[in-house]
Amino acid sequence: MIVLKMGGGRDVNYDHICSDIARLCEDGKDLIVVHGGSHETNEISKKLDKPPRFVTSESGYESRYTDRETIDIFSMVYAGKINTNLTAHLQRLGVNAFGMSGVDGGIIRGERKDAIRVLEEGRRRVLRGGYTGRVTDVDAGALNGLMQAGYTPVISPPALSYEGDPINVDGDRMSAALAGSIGAGTLIILTDRPGLLRDPGDESSLVREIDQENLDRCISWAQGRMRIKVLAAREALARNVSRVVFSDGRVRSPVYAAMNGCGTTFLPIPGRTE
Amino acid sequence: MIVLKMGGGRDVNYDHICSDIARLCEDGKDLIVVHGGSHETNEISKKLDKPPRFVTSESGYESRYTDRETIDIFSMVYAGKINTNLTAHLQRLGVNAFGMSGVDGGIIRGERKDAIRVLEEGRRRVLRGGYTGRVTDVDAGALNGLMQAGYTPVISPPALSYEGDPINVDGDRMSAALAGSIGAGTLIILTDRPGLLRDPGDESSLVREIDQENLDRCISWAQGRMRIKVLAAREALARNVSRVVFSDGRVRSPVYAAMNGCGTTFLPIPGRTE
Repeated sequence: MIVLKMGGGRDVNYDHICSDIARLCEDGKDLIVVHGGSHETNEISKKLDKPPRFVTSESGYESRYTDRETIDIFSMVYAGKINTNLTAHLQRLGVNAFGMSGVDGGIIRGERKDAIRVLEEGRRRVLRGGYTGRVTDVDAGALNGLMQAGYTPVISPPALSYEGDPINVDGDRMSAALAGSIGAGTLIILTDRPGLLRDPGDESSLVREIDQENLDRCISWAQGRMRIKVLAAREALARNVSRVVFSDGRVRSPVYAAMNGCGTTFLPIPGRTE
Repeated sequence: MIVLKMGGGRDVNYDHICSDIARLCEDGKDLIVVHGGSHETNEISKKLDKPPRFVTSESGYESRYTDRETIDIFSMVYAGKINTNLTAHLQRLGVNAFGMSGVDGGIIRGERKDAIRVLEEGRRRVLRGGYTGRVTDVDAGALNGLMQAGYTPVISPPALSYEGDPINVDGDRMSAALAGSIGAGTLIILTDRPGLLRDPGDESSLVREIDQENLDRCISWAQGRMRIKVLAAREALARNVSRVVFSDGRVRSPVYAAMNGCGTTFLPIPGRTE
């Protein structure tokens, strides 16, 4: 079982990824697809005169500030535009894709954060009334039922809060929670980078392998959005996922490349590739 | 089994409708919810600098002209914003709602129209390249499976074309196809009108009952959007749905009111209310 997260960066090639998904499904592999939508959400937000706002938490993680208007735009782009088009595209390739957000059937639940503490221009601030949260529960039974019925789930944020609100949850950490809950052996995260880079400006500085012991150190030097991805990798390993691969979503056969070890592989114990 | 279509008009009160849905589900009734989104789609389209365009077919039916950009906006609003918020709201009320569009799992399929013939300013024109179509197939097995698993399906257009594209299909006719395929006894269509009016400007001109024999005549005098709704009613009866009710979605307890005969009831044989 593989959980495949397709990043929402501008250069991620969904056509190439979908071709691989179709081949894998033809070969009888069990797959859950998760997708992002950050770039597109930024674009639509700007067009709707609601420019995106990003905040950095005290612990150094960057996230989209999501008020009531933003969560609607977020749902429109993730669960509406991207999820529908991706599901249709996979159907066109013969994959019986079933698109959903975490809200549907309460498949992915999370705790809404009443307040977030952020650093803005060096100052601490508390932001309230946001619709963001952290995934706390995945309905693995429902997902297994869908897969047994022959569907390939195509899942995106938002998740459902315990108060019944759609909330923006990080897609990478959601994928990690999903992979853990469903007992997936592999979590693949495809982005518009070759993997984790020691120097974000230099694609040749790719880190090939990281074990659980070195993961914490790596969180401290990872930059920007990559930081939360490394956190997601750590969470997946902690939930007994055998390996997490960050790989390039811009190339041909990106999923097979990732499965064959291209990119950065996170393992629980050094060198233990399964 | 009831199929309940909530219109997308501005004044339709989703809160009142959802309260009724929650009560019905508590009472163990099987329900499929379908929703519209026309008003909201118009609003978002304008904000995105893509003002809505409506065309009238040669046979006098009005519809949204849906090019590639419009189908994306349509998916965003219907499958993204409205479906997600409605599903979350029902979850909040204790209904295990599962939101989906017809694209998901190819649950609702339709034939895409290569070209539509329209009348514009008295002239005939052929418009090509649109993403609209007519529902031809409903996967009743999949919907039954979801209901048996305890979910209340919350469904919206778009449907999936046989070429694998999302297509704009009329929500009322989709509800009729759904009700027929699933063997529903009742189809309720709630709008921002008390029902079918003999005179659209006079809410006291409500037509209380129509049998199949008088339906064709009624299509000829129904106006604008109401015309396609009457067509949907005829299609539902032709598919052995026992009754179709057009009722007011602005009032308190709108679903119970409709079930108790408020509004316009369409019956196969005069006076045979079940």
